[in-house]
Amino acid sequence: MALNIVLLSGGSGKRLWPLSNDIRSKQFIKIFRRPDGSYESMVQQMYREIREVDPDARVSIATSKSQVSVIHNQLGQDVGISVEPCRRDTFPAIALATMYLHDVQGVGEDEPVVVCPCDPYVEREYFAALRRLSELAASGRASLCVMGIVPTYPSEKYGYVVPASDGRISRVAAFKEKPDLESAKQYIARGALWNAGVFAFRCGYMMQKAHSLLEFTDYQDLFAKYEMLTRISFDYAVAEKEQDIAVMRFDGQWKDLGTWNTLTEAMSENTIGNVVLGDHCENVHVINELTAPILVMGLRNAVVSASPQGILVSDKGESSYIKKYVEHIDDRVMFAEKSWGTYRVVNVESDSVMIMNTLNPGAHMSYHSHESRTEILTVISGTGRIVMDPGPGASSWTASRGMCPRAMSSRSVPAAGIR
Amino acid sequence: MALNIVLLSGGSGKRLWPLSNDIRSKQFIKIFRRPDGSYESMVQQMYREIREVDPDARVSIATSKSQVSVIHNQLGQDVGISVEPCRRDTFPAIALATMYLHDVQGVGEDEPVVVCPCDPYVEREYFAALRRLSELAASGRASLCVMGIVPTYPSEKYGYVVPASDGRISRVAAFKEKPDLESAKQYIARGALWNAGVFAFRCGYMMQKAHSLLEFTDYQDLFAKYEMLTRISFDYAVAEKEQDIAVMRFDGQWKDLGTWNTLTEAMSENTIGNVVLGDHCENVHVINELTAPILVMGLRNAVVSASPQGILVSDKGESSYIKKYVEHIDDRVMFAEKSWGTYRVVNVESDSVMIMNTLNPGAHMSYHSHESRTEILTVISGTGRIVMDPGPGASSWTASRGMCPRAMSSRSVPAAGIR
Repeated sequence: MALNIVLLSGGSGKRLWPLSNDIRSKQFIKIFRRPDGSYESMVQQMYREIREVDPDARVSIATSKSQVSVIHNQLGQDVGISVEPCRRDTFPAIALATMYLHDVQGVGEDEPVVVCPCDPYVEREYFAALRRLSELAASGRASLCVMGIVPTYPSEKYGYVVPASDGRISRVAAFKEKPDLESAKQYIARGALWNAGVFAFRCGYMMQKAHSLLEFTDYQDLFAKYEMLTRISFDYAVAEKEQDIAVMRFDGQWKDLGTWNTLTEAMSENTIGNVVLGDHCENVHVINELTAPILVMGLRNAVVSASPQGILVSDKGESSYIKKYVEHIDDRVMFAEKSWGTYRVVNVESDSVMIMNTLNPGAHMSYHSHESRTEILTVISGTGRIVMDPGPGASSWTASRGMCPRAMSSRSVPAAGIR
Repeated sequence: MALNIVLLSGGSGKRLWPLSNDIRSKQFIKIFRRPDGSYESMVQQMYREIREVDPDARVSIATSKSQVSVIHNQLGQDVGISVEPCRRDTFPAIALATMYLHDVQGVGEDEPVVVCPCDPYVEREYFAALRRLSELAASGRASLCVMGIVPTYPSEKYGYVVPASDGRISRVAAFKEKPDLESAKQYIARGALWNAGVFAFRCGYMMQKAHSLLEFTDYQDLFAKYEMLTRISFDYAVAEKEQDIAVMRFDGQWKDLGTWNTLTEAMSENTIGNVVLGDHCENVHVINELTAPILVMGLRNAVVSASPQGILVSDKGESSYIKKYVEHIDDRVMFAEKSWGTYRVVNVESDSVMIMNTLNPGAHMSYHSHESRTEILTVISGTGRIVMDPGPGASSWTASRGMCPRAMSSRSVPAAGIR
């Protein structure tokens, strides 16, 4: 039976500043070495591993509009995307993704669906476990199946799920919200597992939950009404109320790489990019997405990372406190992966910006215009077509290196694209 | 009597990478707070302080061609510059500067001249001491007068001068080259002082030394022959051989800010530029010449500095070992102060560079052309004139914001200037 997997892709990216920003959440940072020596992101790694475990797996991504381009850029055009028009927490997102699977992708009501976040750091055994969870849901032994991660420490960052017995699969006795340290220790003493947000169910089950809690007819209708929905988590709306629910233990590698401290633990080498590490560095990781070199000398237990957003230098232990500082830093997006290529701000002055756009071969930017900005295009390499004022009377020309600088007046700014 | 001061300005700038480069030596880095809140460099501070002590002081800079633009930019057009056509160590440099003072600036043979490096960190009392040294030379009590700095520790980095007696002014018993630690301790026990490279003499004295050791007629002739001169230090050629020589003790503030460790000690605040310093930083200094922000969290005894050349993160103690690493880093000049304004490389690709030039009001670039490069100019703000192919048949036009992008073919590349 084919695997239907919905990867939930969210996140604001403040904690991994400056390599993440409002568009690039942590799951899109390329820090994992592929067998061929290039780098891939968490979402690319997960997508690749799932398909290696099951080449027929149907993988869909539930995400917001702002991530669609980077997802296509990193995963290609074939991946299914359930676009949330806005953020409404996990229950509306899972309901929408389920309707998308059924109405758009043709998934049958009896078919199992696995929902999981796309940003834990896992190894291959995890994907085999997802498959077993899917099979458990398909078997009908429970309406809802949840994966319980065997805790490695009494974390206060996760919810807990308390199994009724200690088998590999058991009924759920209770769900617990993120506890304090003492409660976490008590839960673990009672055999509780981390609730990793990994669920499986039959498609029809979730459609029924969606219809009973939200008023809509089909996927299109739910999509149209999405902004009017109330924010509510899947745990609260469904999991905590469901009686017929099973938990499957998983005691393999499963880590949340939410801070620089944890993220760097997953790096296979100490540096990425143009970096010189001096002789007396210990436990130092450096990721440099700029072209200018970074030289690090005599540091211990530190992370250095640089992108067009800025430069971070932090003690690793201290790195979990980053959010309060980043909130006060200008959050203008300085780099992004677009469906057509990449976008990078290379210079900012008081009344101008210089942006380096790289178009993928054959790709084109969308037609667009600006109200209060003059745009000058200079082709640095390659050839392409520029179209002004699309429609009847459009002018277009072929542009190549050094040939098409053109000032466009701010009033009549034409819709311009290169394709 | 007016003070004639020659400031020796040299240095390669590897030790203060990335804020220094082949063009900007440490004396040009703007890290000292002016009374008005803006920043000035060492050479600006020294120039300003000398003129505050003696408004009539005639200050000349002995330097290489590559520093002329930054000196004019930082000190204005009035400063006298004795340009060394190439580096030939301190004796030829002082000989050339002396001939420049006499032949070009009209300094008389009986007038005293003070020669000193432009890059120690000093306080106002130092300039009063320079004046006293000048007066000592003018008095004729000795042919050569040298300033001896009262040592604060047994340094291995400086030469020593051993006074014959312990008065404020005494005859010199001996000069000692840079010693090892043990010898330094012994010298200091014998009352030796640091030889800071600060000398005073009457102009005619040095002219005579120059003529006796080098074959030339006048300043122009010496300038023309400069490349053929042998490298030789002033200490070796003159000071160590002179019998009639006095040393004047100076026990005020005098520091060589040659490493990041010492340079940051002289900063009046912990950060310069767009920097966020977290709560748990101790003895951390950050200088950011980029526009993107730097966030530093939980570091101790560290320096962080960033410029278009690159980014340095170093333990302060470790920072003195920087040279061996920087020697392996690409040393293309990424920023420079020019006589007409500033130059900054903002983006480097495999076959193109983007450069941000800022022209000072009224200034113009020199006419120039390129053999194998296409240059596209885009005016971001302001207005100016562009002249192509100067001479008969020149074309020129007025350029303003967004109005003058122009591709220039690499063959017929015109001489282009904005003025």
